[in-house]
Amino acid sequence: MARAWHLISRPEAMPQPENFELKEFDPGALSGGKIRVKNSWLTVDPYMRGRMRDVKSYVPPFQIGEPLEGGAIGQVIESQADGFAVGDMVQHQVGWRDESVLDAAGAQKLPDLGVPPQSFLGYLGMPGMTAYFGLLDVAQAKEGDIVFVSGAAGAVGSTVIQVAKAKGMTAIGSAGGADKCDWVKSLGADACIDYKSDGSLLEKLMDAAPKGLDVYFDNVGGEHLDVAFAVANPGARFAECGMISAYNSTEPMEFRYIMNVIGKGIMMKGFIVTQFMARAAEFYQDMGAMVASGKLESQETVHEGLESQVDAFRGLFTGGNTGKMLVKL
Amino acid sequence: MARAWHLISRPEAMPQPENFELKEFDPGALSGGKIRVKNSWLTVDPYMRGRMRDVKSYVPPFQIGEPLEGGAIGQVIESQADGFAVGDMVQHQVGWRDESVLDAAGAQKLPDLGVPPQSFLGYLGMPGMTAYFGLLDVAQAKEGDIVFVSGAAGAVGSTVIQVAKAKGMTAIGSAGGADKCDWVKSLGADACIDYKSDGSLLEKLMDAAPKGLDVYFDNVGGEHLDVAFAVANPGARFAECGMISAYNSTEPMEFRYIMNVIGKGIMMKGFIVTQFMARAAEFYQDMGAMVASGKLESQETVHEGLESQVDAFRGLFTGGNTGKMLVKL
Repeated sequence: MARAWHLISRPEAMPQPENFELKEFDPGALSGGKIRVKNSWLTVDPYMRGRMRDVKSYVPPFQIGEPLEGGAIGQVIESQADGFAVGDMVQHQVGWRDESVLDAAGAQKLPDLGVPPQSFLGYLGMPGMTAYFGLLDVAQAKEGDIVFVSGAAGAVGSTVIQVAKAKGMTAIGSAGGADKCDWVKSLGADACIDYKSDGSLLEKLMDAAPKGLDVYFDNVGGEHLDVAFAVANPGARFAECGMISAYNSTEPMEFRYIMNVIGKGIMMKGFIVTQFMARAAEFYQDMGAMVASGKLESQETVHEGLESQVDAFRGLFTGGNTGKMLVKL
Repeated sequence: MARAWHLISRPEAMPQPENFELKEFDPGALSGGKIRVKNSWLTVDPYMRGRMRDVKSYVPPFQIGEPLEGGAIGQVIESQADGFAVGDMVQHQVGWRDESVLDAAGAQKLPDLGVPPQSFLGYLGMPGMTAYFGLLDVAQAKEGDIVFVSGAAGAVGSTVIQVAKAKGMTAIGSAGGADKCDWVKSLGADACIDYKSDGSLLEKLMDAAPKGLDVYFDNVGGEHLDVAFAVANPGARFAECGMISAYNSTEPMEFRYIMNVIGKGIMMKGFIVTQFMARAAEFYQDMGAMVASGKLESQETVHEGLESQVDAFRGLFTGGNTGKMLVKL
């Protein structure tokens, strides 16, 4: 019998194990245009926390008592859809379960880029597209720019660092802990701030970016965003990708330097990756070339077994991952 | 003997009378390229508060013990500059004094638009250009958009309302008090929120903008900006012109809804009017046509005499003006 993680109650702050239950469920019978997939990799991503709230947003909220959903990689084991055969490796959005039945229109066969399949949940998947288009399109980052990215040891942030370096930018990251910062620097970052170490975040950023910032790629919000306002150069562009520091908070965010937006003419723009889906071919072409030339590497934090997925998800908010957080089935 | 307001000490919070002193001074002798102007109108504007801080910004800070500066209108009484004759009416940036000596390159003769000269300190001057380019260029507002502007009874905000209506937009203002709101509505605003009345600002804005906001023109910052994040439509554009609620504050601003920037794809951009000076001709042409067709009107709050200028300036932060705050000499 197939099993899926169900949402039992909505988390108030940090998600707790009792908000979730792993239960048997019936993925459903196959009908025309559908495929059945045996999943081998599942992803957990920070944006999923937002779908656990009962608020209107760009994706509908998860429903109480229903299975959760999210990115997954697996193998087709049954098909009633043209173009999909048993044995095909696909990615889709009906994860948090070991077996998925879905319309084939919601599945994509994995491009042949000579990388492990789970890469398409990371730097070659949604987090990678988020990094790529957020940096190059939303923030309009270009060669010579000084780029600061928070959450630089995460799936998105670590890709931002590498794309920035591949494109001739100065890349400064922030991450929690010396080990993560060492890894971020090993990816090519010119500097990495350990936000958990003693001292003021503002001073650390001023030290790391003595010539200021042209671009800030925000995954964290809160104080990181505030000090980016302080250190930004005139005309700086901020790509607002995430604010993970606030996802489990009910307190307002405090800003001391937001008024700099005016005098410095800062442009700040939020985005969600789905708006760039029509440009996936451009992404695979450019990123594929970077992979082939050895300019991109990935790191994964892998939890084993469907039972571990809630732990993996909770770990996103406590710094539990370096690189992409994944669940292997 | 000429007199000028001098900065004696830097205000900590709300500027106090003892921070300023009106003293006799020598405007200087005339040399090549210079003109001497007898000022008849002086302006006070919120941005001047920023120049009283000792911080690097887009304009250098005022110096302790030196005369203040700012916009002024007056008549040339002596000229050693080509193209400027005694009797010419000019505007310039060497105000806070009754007589100015300056390089003629820093003065502009008043365009002939059939309006009183002090209009060029208001809706046909710097505040007007701020409103015009902030709305149409920074926020890319267009016909059919729903526009919210805070500080709508001020010099900039009241011009935003009128330009928005002249261009076929829905215009919603906020102002402090029923009288100001009545005036804002008399300018054509579709609705005006009295932020000083009982009740939540968020609910007032939701009531006034049941279809959400496409554009927010921010003069106020703080809670006004926060509720604009809450009520904004997907793809909304925020022109960040000012944050007067924080100019005299040492406390951080608190935001509960800033995370909406991400999911709604909000674009927020700061600007200063000087970046649009090269487009002054376009401004005068378009605004001149609106004036000629009766689509623009102005209101002024006039203080009499140079002695009153500090009171006028302080009044900007306590809601003392409806329309443009001016000092008449």
